[in-house]
Amino acid sequence: MISGGEPSTPPVPTKNPADLLDAAGGGDRVALARLLSQVERGGQAGHRAAAQAYRTGVEADTVGITGAPGAGKSTLTARLIATARRAGVSQVGVLAVDPSSPFSGGAILGDRVRMQDHALDPGVFIRSMASRGHLGGLAAAVPEAVRIMGAAGFPLVLVETVGVGQVEVEVATATDTTVVVVNPGWGDAIQANKAGLLETADIFVINKADRPGTREARRDLEQMLDLTTPGDWRPPVVETVASDGSGVDRLWEQITHHKSHLLADGRLERRRKVRLDREIAQLLAARIDYEVKRLLAGEAAGALTDRVVAHELDPYEAVQAMMTTVLGESA
Amino acid sequence: MISGGEPSTPPVPTKNPADLLDAAGGGDRVALARLLSQVERGGQAGHRAAAQAYRTGVEADTVGITGAPGAGKSTLTARLIATARRAGVSQVGVLAVDPSSPFSGGAILGDRVRMQDHALDPGVFIRSMASRGHLGGLAAAVPEAVRIMGAAGFPLVLVETVGVGQVEVEVATATDTTVVVVNPGWGDAIQANKAGLLETADIFVINKADRPGTREARRDLEQMLDLTTPGDWRPPVVETVASDGSGVDRLWEQITHHKSHLLADGRLERRRKVRLDREIAQLLAARIDYEVKRLLAGEAAGALTDRVVAHELDPYEAVQAMMTTVLGESA
Repeated sequence: MISGGEPSTPPVPTKNPADLLDAAGGGDRVALARLLSQVERGGQAGHRAAAQAYRTGVEADTVGITGAPGAGKSTLTARLIATARRAGVSQVGVLAVDPSSPFSGGAILGDRVRMQDHALDPGVFIRSMASRGHLGGLAAAVPEAVRIMGAAGFPLVLVETVGVGQVEVEVATATDTTVVVVNPGWGDAIQANKAGLLETADIFVINKADRPGTREARRDLEQMLDLTTPGDWRPPVVETVASDGSGVDRLWEQITHHKSHLLADGRLERRRKVRLDREIAQLLAARIDYEVKRLLAGEAAGALTDRVVAHELDPYEAVQAMMTTVLGESA
Repeated sequence: MISGGEPSTPPVPTKNPADLLDAAGGGDRVALARLLSQVERGGQAGHRAAAQAYRTGVEADTVGITGAPGAGKSTLTARLIATARRAGVSQVGVLAVDPSSPFSGGAILGDRVRMQDHALDPGVFIRSMASRGHLGGLAAAVPEAVRIMGAAGFPLVLVETVGVGQVEVEVATATDTTVVVVNPGWGDAIQANKAGLLETADIFVINKADRPGTREARRDLEQMLDLTTPGDWRPPVVETVASDGSGVDRLWEQITHHKSHLLADGRLERRRKVRLDREIAQLLAARIDYEVKRLLAGEAAGALTDRVVAHELDPYEAVQAMMTTVLGESA
């Protein structure tokens, strides 16, 4: 091979979202990658593709994997891919999400995972995503990417995030099942609690469970779980050693167990409805921000601001005037 | 005195903003307090009062005081009041701002300061402000309150915030001179840097400078200042012991020094223009947010969300439809 290890795929002749989505559904990875880039950039093409994907009504099961940097999420994700494939999942998609990075397209986390085990498995597709300019950021881009992968025939998408910042937690919890990874060691479980992960976890993993402090970490987690309001699902605490694969089968078991739980009594529908409401609110906020900037960049707004600077209007009156201009009589 | 220590003031016969502002300018503290309550509530009366105050063109000098809870900001503020009064400032206003508290009107921080030294000084007016329901929150209410106090004849308004959250920093930096208070001790200066305070500080104070770690804190701050792009003002680092007043004269000196710096070359005008732009953008965002939420609570938005749940629209399209409804053809 001349091109240095890249799988040779025939060139995609179009950038049309509908055609790309068809091609991606037929197994064309280049088409899929192109669609995900469109989504990441946040332009009209990406939205059209995501809209079309959404309207198919086909949705992937999603598992979010979050936790502090160094907890071993990437290794665990790689193990989960293998376990899911052995369990018969036809295609596993992975989105490795790094809100703090300007790089994407497989340059960071994705590579680490891809290199390890799955380079030759056509049933696995791994993609890194970073903040590229999508209106609403990754919190908006990731659900669209998941939709594309779902419509392209992936029954399962793992969403791995690098840190425990607000965006990471938001992204990881916008999934059907949220796995929170901690390590043995004093206070790690408590840190997870502080970061607001306790309420969002469906499953806890104590990774690196061959190290001292595992029992204490479990005790801390169980104690904190005892204190939370009892719902209809108490997050199980699973011990794993991702580096050698121990415990990963049991984690997969708990993921499928949680899925069965969600499927009962319409829980999954309710959960997805809540997520949609949140997504709409976020997109709306981003859109408002955009419109405000556009408005302020206009001539009318500039003239009004000048009058404020001259103390002829106060800021509130200027805003009222801008709104009246935009909204007409209704403001 | 029967009424238990409250200064006896004749009742204010009106709630009309113009009359209240006249009365406040004549030294009527009850009228001033009433105006500030109106501003805090964010109703039309408050906006009218702030607009009228703004149009007078009389603006107070403003000093923001921010830093972590426990840094000694209230004690330092109390000392600064005394120093400013001794230096000949005819009237000093203080806004003690607590975004996390639903209480206001002097119930919290303000009391601590007021009780200490200034209860009997008619040249001092202290007022606590909390999030009361002002559209745009405290970030919008505080500039209006400052305008009222400026028009009421206060040449200097100190704006003290309780914490270092985003809103607090926003409020404290919406002043002519921002004072960031840290304490000796490993990492406190670094925390300030993390919280984004380094770029916003015009003056650093190491308070409790009689404690160990002062030299290290100064070294950390100076090192961080060395790394920032050199502008035309390098924030001085002042050591104080607010509890006994040491160093406060030097802080006051630096505040007046910074004021002179701002007055040269039109810097103050440029700074106030930047603040106005930001204030207008915030008010506009708050206003559009309000309109959109009003819309979301309505039937049309509910119908759109239902169509998303039914996979007939994707979230992006629903948002587009909502924006078109609010903003008309321009969206």
